[in-house]
Amino acid sequence: MAASRRLLKFGITRKEVLCFLRTLAPKNTGTKHYDDNDNCGSRLDYLFHPRSIALAGASRDPAKRGNELLHGFMDAGYKGQIYPINPGATEIAGLKAYPSVSAIPGPVDYVISVLPVGAAKPLTEDCAAKGVKAIQFYTAGFSETGDPAMKKREEEIVAIARAAGTRVLGPNCVGIYCPETGMVFHVGASKKSGPVGFISQSGGNSEDLVWAAPLRGVYFSKAISFGNAADLNESDFLEYLVHDPATNIVSGYLEGFKNGRKFVDQLRQAQGKKPVIILKGGRTEAGTRAVASHTGSLAGKMAVWDALCQQYGVVQFCSLDELLDMAVAFQYMKPPRGRRVAVIGSGGGASVQAADDCETCGCPVPKLPESARAELRTFTSEVGRFFANPLDSPTRGWAPEQFQHAIKIVLDQPEMDFLIVFIGVDITLFLHDGKKIRDRTTEALITAAGMVDKPIVVVLKSGGSLEGSQAVLEQQARLVEGGLPVYPTLPRAVSAVSRLIAWHERQ
Amino acid sequence: MAASRRLLKFGITRKEVLCFLRTLAPKNTGTKHYDDNDNCGSRLDYLFHPRSIALAGASRDPAKRGNELLHGFMDAGYKGQIYPINPGATEIAGLKAYPSVSAIPGPVDYVISVLPVGAAKPLTEDCAAKGVKAIQFYTAGFSETGDPAMKKREEEIVAIARAAGTRVLGPNCVGIYCPETGMVFHVGASKKSGPVGFISQSGGNSEDLVWAAPLRGVYFSKAISFGNAADLNESDFLEYLVHDPATNIVSGYLEGFKNGRKFVDQLRQAQGKKPVIILKGGRTEAGTRAVASHTGSLAGKMAVWDALCQQYGVVQFCSLDELLDMAVAFQYMKPPRGRRVAVIGSGGGASVQAADDCETCGCPVPKLPESARAELRTFTSEVGRFFANPLDSPTRGWAPEQFQHAIKIVLDQPEMDFLIVFIGVDITLFLHDGKKIRDRTTEALITAAGMVDKPIVVVLKSGGSLEGSQAVLEQQARLVEGGLPVYPTLPRAVSAVSRLIAWHERQ
Repeated sequence: MAASRRLLKFGITRKEVLCFLRTLAPKNTGTKHYDDNDNCGSRLDYLFHPRSIALAGASRDPAKRGNELLHGFMDAGYKGQIYPINPGATEIAGLKAYPSVSAIPGPVDYVISVLPVGAAKPLTEDCAAKGVKAIQFYTAGFSETGDPAMKKREEEIVAIARAAGTRVLGPNCVGIYCPETGMVFHVGASKKSGPVGFISQSGGNSEDLVWAAPLRGVYFSKAISFGNAADLNESDFLEYLVHDPATNIVSGYLEGFKNGRKFVDQLRQAQGKKPVIILKGGRTEAGTRAVASHTGSLAGKMAVWDALCQQYGVVQFCSLDELLDMAVAFQYMKPPRGRRVAVIGSGGGASVQAADDCETCGCPVPKLPESARAELRTFTSEVGRFFANPLDSPTRGWAPEQFQHAIKIVLDQPEMDFLIVFIGVDITLFLHDGKKIRDRTTEALITAAGMVDKPIVVVLKSGGSLEGSQAVLEQQARLVEGGLPVYPTLPRAVSAVSRLIAWHERQ
Repeated sequence: MAASRRLLKFGITRKEVLCFLRTLAPKNTGTKHYDDNDNCGSRLDYLFHPRSIALAGASRDPAKRGNELLHGFMDAGYKGQIYPINPGATEIAGLKAYPSVSAIPGPVDYVISVLPVGAAKPLTEDCAAKGVKAIQFYTAGFSETGDPAMKKREEEIVAIARAAGTRVLGPNCVGIYCPETGMVFHVGASKKSGPVGFISQSGGNSEDLVWAAPLRGVYFSKAISFGNAADLNESDFLEYLVHDPATNIVSGYLEGFKNGRKFVDQLRQAQGKKPVIILKGGRTEAGTRAVASHTGSLAGKMAVWDALCQQYGVVQFCSLDELLDMAVAFQYMKPPRGRRVAVIGSGGGASVQAADDCETCGCPVPKLPESARAELRTFTSEVGRFFANPLDSPTRGWAPEQFQHAIKIVLDQPEMDFLIVFIGVDITLFLHDGKKIRDRTTEALITAAGMVDKPIVVVLKSGGSLEGSQAVLEQQARLVEGGLPVYPTLPRAVSAVSRLIAWHERQ
């Protein structure tokens, strides 16, 4: 009994946790949730593999989402049938258009609605009659407005759908991204699959992350934007990802919780199996005001949330950038044995800064033993450089063998647990042979990483000029292809490594 | 007497401060410094306006600095004579070359050396014979190596120069950037002058900052990299910038201090006249180990440094990015009356994040009064958007008049001290008319800023794709041209505004 009352450590009871999660429910708190266990684990698989998709609100106007999405699915290589629904058109984007879902001759698994809110109910009736498996509503203007009439309309729609065995995703969401089957939010999404699953209450965050992650070498199994979660909710999708064999890293952006009990249960099931990394929106009074109806005593509630995360080893963040940093760490790095870092960098000031950053972020920078310095002196000059830890690179970079040799000497020291190589890209931009220098460094690093058994982390820094950004993107693409984790700043790299170590220590 | 013993607040004496600054002297501590007051204020002007420059170590190889620099000066529009010095060449980069400085027929004001360390002494003798006003040494390998023999060589060189009335800049530095006269560190530096002066012990930091700052609309009066400060030191240049009429904002990257007494004196003189913003390298044991010979009891010393900064209102930073953020704030913003922030943004999740970020960084996000919301409802729809503070933008941006109207309504509220507009650029990249949407937003913002009397700050956020970076750079260039401060993330914007307010409150 005591165990069930005090399921959680840190003096917080399970009841307190569930109560807290309920108070953080979205503004449509009270909408019935269908906790009927018909969606556990793989049972939601069909959402990601629809044989056919209908787009309600398809448009001939290339500046409308109802047109962009058709191109998005086609560009992504979606293999099933795509049916534009538009009563005033016979063909859109080269596809035969239909006046309604029920007018489509074959079966329709999945319907996407970009229609205005007033058209949602007739569409749902249409889909129910057709026997559609799921409807995803971009359509907004429901319970998220805080208007009781609109909340009622949302409930009606879900009731109509559920009565016909149709599930609802959203409303007020951008739906599903699944590169394996060619389902997308927008044109231009990566076609490459990867081990990261992402669930998100926010459509914008889903779009931003799916767009930015591949640049860092992070690819998705599935990303799901569920918006108001009127039917399928955060906990359903958390459960799905925790059990999905294609997903090794579970991540999410969450504001509120529709089914706190199931959510906690799934966090417990994920423990020791898959890392769960979550960005919680609404940590402050103003942030919470924007997402939930009940806000009193927020600080106390956040303590409950923090305790919950600590209990189940959930890695928490304050920004999407940090979430992405952590996905890079989990995907590209074996955990170092400890936090003692060797640093190789470019530029004296930058080396000082690097040492300060590492120690400030909790990673000590041990002295490089004199024996190692002597070994380095046999093949590389000390002039004009820091020749210790940090070890300063030559102004025009290293010759590849020398670089590899230096890395090996530094990482062979028992004092060092891992290596950060930071590269100031801008300084190469005004050099005649800058590109050659960058390429040489990149290849030497990839080779070196295969020669040592301690992790190497790369920081590529630019002040953000177009040339600098381009140089970073090129170098980053090659480095992640070579299996190396890359970060844009040293504090972000150190912070991610430090949290990776903490997560593994906990297992 | 008590006053002079306890000149500083926070229980720290002037003696403690000077002692601290001495212990943080660079590794060449003990080199005599020429505190002869012949360089106060405008007396160093000649360094920035040399009639002629000779480059010792000029090279025909385009991949050498001895060649790149010649092109750098010519590209920057340097108006005086440029003399390549190379005993084996008659012409380099289209310029007549000379075997030595004394072989040049006319007067030579300024000599730059990219020669190796062994050639420094004969060069100095050559310059002394010619009556050169100043020599700047890229040349490294002197006292910064920690080798007493090399420190002695550095002292010899300074002694030879000073005996002939020649001043030394460096060694181990990249020298002077002065867009007004076309003096540069590297090819491609901006030709535009601005109100920011920068002094730096680190050449790499100088190059990085001068390269990155113009993207943010920050331009320099002068930037000076002084390296080992064997003759002219940090305090000489601080004094110069504090008194330079072309410099309104004094900034610096400093590791150690050659003349702490003068440094403190200049900080006092800057008070109430010009903001001084400093990044101090070597705040941790490892960072200090890299820059100074004495490290014991660092934490206590940092407390002295922090107290010194507090005493004289020096704005302190932990990275060059933050330093640049602050320069943007000082250059582009009237201080808001207070920290209460109105937020207009794009995307629900991003709005929640923005509210969390503002409140976490100490800027409260007040509720938007119902009367203001009613006014907004008269011309813009609430559907699918946060309609409060933060106020969510329409998915495809605002019509210009509506945007301006919305800004006016929000800033007219007495609860709001300033406005942050955050723009997720990536979301426009997959829209058919994304560029049009961005341009419309930009122009509307510039117009709106002229209509209101409270500050507007813009955050342009991208995940870093090449398209995203390009879109940010274009929009940023136009916004800073229109006089608006632009930041890459919301926490960085809020932090800079908050520190700007603190600085003005102190005056």
